[in-house]
Amino acid sequence: MTSRKSFGSDNHAGAHEAVLRMLAAANRGDTHGYGDDPWTERTAGLLSHRFGAAGGAYFVFNGTAANLLGLSLLVRPFEAVICAETAHLNVDECGAPERLLGSKLLTVAAPDGKLTPELIATRLGGRGDEHRAQPRAVCLTQVTELGTCYSLAELRAIGEFCRANQLRLYIDGARLANAAAHLDCSLADIAAEADVLSFGGTKNGAVAVEAVVVMAADLTETVAYQRKQLLQLASKMRFLAAQFDGLLADDVWLENARHANLMAQRLSGGLRGIPGVGVRQAVQSNAVFAELDPRYIEPLQREWGFYVWDERTGVVRLMTAFNTAEDDVEAFLASIREVASHPR
Amino acid sequence: MTSRKSFGSDNHAGAHEAVLRMLAAANRGDTHGYGDDPWTERTAGLLSHRFGAAGGAYFVFNGTAANLLGLSLLVRPFEAVICAETAHLNVDECGAPERLLGSKLLTVAAPDGKLTPELIATRLGGRGDEHRAQPRAVCLTQVTELGTCYSLAELRAIGEFCRANQLRLYIDGARLANAAAHLDCSLADIAAEADVLSFGGTKNGAVAVEAVVVMAADLTETVAYQRKQLLQLASKMRFLAAQFDGLLADDVWLENARHANLMAQRLSGGLRGIPGVGVRQAVQSNAVFAELDPRYIEPLQREWGFYVWDERTGVVRLMTAFNTAEDDVEAFLASIREVASHPR
Amino acid sequence: MTSRKSFGSDNHAGAHEAVLRMLAAANRGDTHGYGDDPWTERTAGLLSHRFGAAGGAYFVFNGTAANLLGLSLLVRPFEAVICAETAHLNVDECGAPERLLGSKLLTVAAPDGKLTPELIATRLGGRGDEHRAQPRAVCLTQVTELGTCYSLAELRAIGEFCRANQLRLYIDGARLANAAAHLDCSLADIAAEADVLSFGGTKNGAVAVEAVVVMAADLTETVAYQRKQLLQLASKMRFLAAQFDGLLADDVWLENARHANLMAQRLSGGLRGIPGVGVRQAVQSNAVFAELDPRYIEPLQREWGFYVWDERTGVVRLMTAFNTAEDDVEAFLASIREVASHPR
Amino acid sequence: MTSRKSFGSDNHAGAHEAVLRMLAAANRGDTHGYGDDPWTERTAGLLSHRFGAAGGAYFVFNGTAANLLGLSLLVRPFEAVICAETAHLNVDECGAPERLLGSKLLTVAAPDGKLTPELIATRLGGRGDEHRAQPRAVCLTQVTELGTCYSLAELRAIGEFCRANQLRLYIDGARLANAAAHLDCSLADIAAEADVLSFGGTKNGAVAVEAVVVMAADLTETVAYQRKQLLQLASKMRFLAAQFDGLLADDVWLENARHANLMAQRLSGGLRGIPGVGVRQAVQSNAVFAELDPRYIEPLQREWGFYVWDERTGVVRLMTAFNTAEDDVEAFLASIREVASHPR
Repeated sequence: MTSRKSFGSDNHAGAHEAVLRMLAAANRGDTHGYGDDPWTERTAGLLSHRFGAAGGAYFVFNGTAANLLGLSLLVRPFEAVICAETAHLNVDECGAPERLLGSKLLTVAAPDGKLTPELIATRLGGRGDEHRAQPRAVCLTQVTELGTCYSLAELRAIGEFCRANQLRLYIDGARLANAAAHLDCSLADIAAEADVLSFGGTKNGAVAVEAVVVMAADLTETVAYQRKQLLQLASKMRFLAAQFDGLLADDVWLENARHANLMAQRLSGGLRGIPGVGVRQAVQSNAVFAELDPRYIEPLQREWGFYVWDERTGVVRLMTAFNTAEDDVEAFLASIREVASHPR
Repeated sequence: MTSRKSFGSDNHAGAHEAVLRMLAAANRGDTHGYGDDPWTERTAGLLSHRFGAAGGAYFVFNGTAANLLGLSLLVRPFEAVICAETAHLNVDECGAPERLLGSKLLTVAAPDGKLTPELIATRLGGRGDEHRAQPRAVCLTQVTELGTCYSLAELRAIGEFCRANQLRLYIDGARLANAAAHLDCSLADIAAEADVLSFGGTKNGAVAVEAVVVMAADLTETVAYQRKQLLQLASKMRFLAAQFDGLLADDVWLENARHANLMAQRLSGGLRGIPGVGVRQAVQSNAVFAELDPRYIEPLQREWGFYVWDERTGVVRLMTAFNTAEDDVEAFLASIREVASHPR
Repeated sequence: MTSRKSFGSDNHAGAHEAVLRMLAAANRGDTHGYGDDPWTERTAGLLSHRFGAAGGAYFVFNGTAANLLGLSLLVRPFEAVICAETAHLNVDECGAPERLLGSKLLTVAAPDGKLTPELIATRLGGRGDEHRAQPRAVCLTQVTELGTCYSLAELRAIGEFCRANQLRLYIDGARLANAAAHLDCSLADIAAEADVLSFGGTKNGAVAVEAVVVMAADLTETVAYQRKQLLQLASKMRFLAAQFDGLLADDVWLENARHANLMAQRLSGGLRGIPGVGVRQAVQSNAVFAELDPRYIEPLQREWGFYVWDERTGVVRLMTAFNTAEDDVEAFLASIREVASHPR
Repeated sequence: MTSRKSFGSDNHAGAHEAVLRMLAAANRGDTHGYGDDPWTERTAGLLSHRFGAAGGAYFVFNGTAANLLGLSLLVRPFEAVICAETAHLNVDECGAPERLLGSKLLTVAAPDGKLTPELIATRLGGRGDEHRAQPRAVCLTQVTELGTCYSLAELRAIGEFCRANQLRLYIDGARLANAAAHLDCSLADIAAEADVLSFGGTKNGAVAVEAVVVMAADLTETVAYQRKQLLQLASKMRFLAAQFDGLLADDVWLENARHANLMAQRLSGGLRGIPGVGVRQAVQSNAVFAELDPRYIEPLQREWGFYVWDERTGVVRLMTAFNTAEDDVEAFLASIREVASHPR
């Protein structure tokens, strides 16, 4: 383990202690497998209630799986998913959507990572033409891969556009908690326009669990079979439920997200005053995209973990997490100030 | 949670405390994601060493995923996998092999769940004929779905047959630990003939983890991409590694398997003396297949969890686990003796 | 080209002259592509009328494609297709159903190639169980791969069973014309119970065309997209339509089928009197399955093309076609009598 | 049939009479199915010779199928294909590549439809990163969907780039004949850099046939099985071969392509002088992309078939074919001059 906090990813953090405690609590006695147990029933019910989800909540192992299971409820192989070019679905899933769903992704350039009705409209050509993959679902990421958040008004506008255009709406919510914290709204508020969405546990402090939340009751017919075929049916399901239980009790999930977001604000605030450093993208979650004088990067990486987003422009991504301490932020800022004062 | 031990499945048991302890231990500090961490490196290395696996060990979330990832290294869509009709791969994976690999399963009736060179040979027709899916891999289960074990001699015979017939050998080892305990041999002994195999953690006392063990060094080129596409790349991989670490340290895995097997022996021993009860299949692991007077089943199920394997014949499956106590076995035997003494 | 008629397959015959004439007729002037032309409209309409098909008729290039397109309208990847072990779908399509649909085939042993409600019922286990591929469609072949025909009563019984059990019925009709000729009934009679079926042109005298006939109007939503994705959308569609036009005009198709069936009757009649020769399976189409004294096979194959169905039992398949002449049959019978009189 | 020549597509033309003649010639006598016949052997051999193809030539039914079969020899599901945004593969195949190969397409904006080493290089990121689909093949179209041709020097540059970067090169040659005519070079010259390519018959005057030409001998291992699984194995293969035979004899294919190209030159030459009409893209084949005063389009379409490529800009696509007569071109030019003289 590294001695210092990593700003490389929110999955470099371990698990929140409430999660481990609940795993231990769930370990008492025997119970049925595959979700037919009281932990799963209770926690899935709790999630459904929080989201206002008529179709229920289903636990899976990771974020790519959540996206695939969610979209499997919405598209057939000849139907396409519209998403931003930068979407995790498009960039970071090794082509799993194409392989597992057989569907085409119709991508749109979106400099801040956010789709709009206008951008979505550019990919609606060819409907009814058998030569063309048929646009059927929109996938947006909340918060986006660039750390930005859709406002509730922006979500409503997209939701209305989707309904008016026979498009289903899926939200990749690997960092949905951070969006709820930033927008200071309920999970149900964010989910209101979606047909299906994911709710990320792992980056929020779980060991390995995400929830697929099905808002529409008419979309549940196939979910059990899709989950099994997509390799996401846990035999000891209670341990997936228990992780979310640890996050939901006492709103640990929200506390975790608020803290991570706050650390990102401190970080970006501190960065703004440093020569040769600019902040790209609005800081609306736990990510800071900073453009660094290229000379800073190598010496900084000797001490700190972070990800160079774009080698050409010197933009780096700095992620905070539930376990980022103020001291970590201060130490990082001190390091970069030091580097900035003696560029090679 | 049920107050009594379930004989329904070895996944009705919770996790072994060594596993939870190791999860907590792995939770110190930040580390890299996706397996680039010291826990994963060490535990995967340890597994490779135990199996004599030149191609390494890779953690996945469940048994179906292990089978799919393992076979994805061996077959292309026009190539077929030969397996027993009763194989988990054929019966219990909801068609995931067909969907995710695109491959046909060529099944063989095997009354004790075990393939033989002679049975495999019956499915080798049509080689070189473009109309026919091309037999390319054999999948056997050790221990089988019927609780039986291949002896090392039987494995060697199959291995030789496969090599002589250009067939790759995959072993579904969801209960490999129980086989090692029964055969009183090393994991490397069982794996010697395989190209790829799985090593089940979950039924042995883990929360949710299996390993895909690649024996042949020339099969690793695609494993990282297949794992990602098949939705099995954990971001906080250290927690998957840590589970196996908990099982491997002090040979907890072997102790767990030996204990479960012993409980199955006690159970089958006790059953043999009860009127209206017969034991089907050799008891060579932690499963007992018992044929019950049909009148016994309903009253027994009011008190005990177990699975009716074949309603027609009254055969039930009784599984023991690492946490089955002798008292559980005695109490179950007392219940069935009671029922047998007063059949309705 | 061989100088003699082949009894190897009905696709060893060329095309009927009416088909080639109609290709030439369709070659006048320009017209729209992809089926938006008068030939396609007229011929597809004619087929729909003959079958009583509310969902229309769609041309594809070959029989495997017809099966895949037809079944693509009926099953999703987690849904399974019940068929006979001997079905073309299972044996002769190189695993295309598994690859292209992602669906499992649930096979049943059927010594005469024919399914029954009782046989189908054996594969209905596991409904509602997420671990099991869900039985959703039945695929039968009319005439079967063994040359036998379902009677209309047998088809009705299967149709009733399917409706009572929420199963869709698909008929692989690569040789449907021969069945209509044998049963002396209309195409609509045979199709009455089916949801979707294929109607083979190629073996009946076309160059390369089959029709997918959709009986139920509610199954057409996806057919255009499935046809395109499954590589079956012809740009110069008029030439596919024209082939069927050649067969349908003056009932050439029926004449062709009747003639082929008659030749099979003559052939089997002649065989019955020859020592060392037995006829297996009822001769109900243009196939004769004959069990030959093994010593006859090699000398016969020096002169005549036919397919050894089962080397172990000496069963050979003898196919007649629209272009088989009585003289061909007599010459073949003479050859076999000659061989039988001087076995080595 | 329309009374007038269509400029809508080169597949609006019928078949060349040499093709129909050869179909009739191939119809003599019985022969083996599935390509084991003298017509297939001879014509495939002839094609291999013309292309210098060590891996042979394989007939399929249409252009989408040719692309899929060709690419199936080059990529696995986690490997991606780089192509122009405008590629037929990306736009016009209804997502068949994603469904049938499971592979992602990595698209590049290319205003003239042509890839360059520089454009290809922009999509090579993420190699060795398991989160990213791995770039493995380049698909270019010759002639492109915009009617432009790669020069032999451009092809060489791309070929060198591919070899230097471990990329396989596939050429979609639906209109390869037109490229050979334009470049005044041999088929082997165009194919020299490719690993696999298609050679289109249909748009050149066939009924329905394309060839997949495998340049590299080491790529043939799987082609027979891929062809069958991808629904492209014709039973009466001789009739596919015969179509190419009709085109290859006396270089009908080249004559057809030269004529179509010449008609496009006449057409574009005539258009250049008309007010309100501009010619977009270099005219290097049988396509003319003309920007029309938007007021011209509707009256012209009352009389003539053509395709509006971009409604926003008024760009229309005018295709010529082997059967386009000089009078057709003159009549069309007269119509547009008439419309231009009286715009509404």
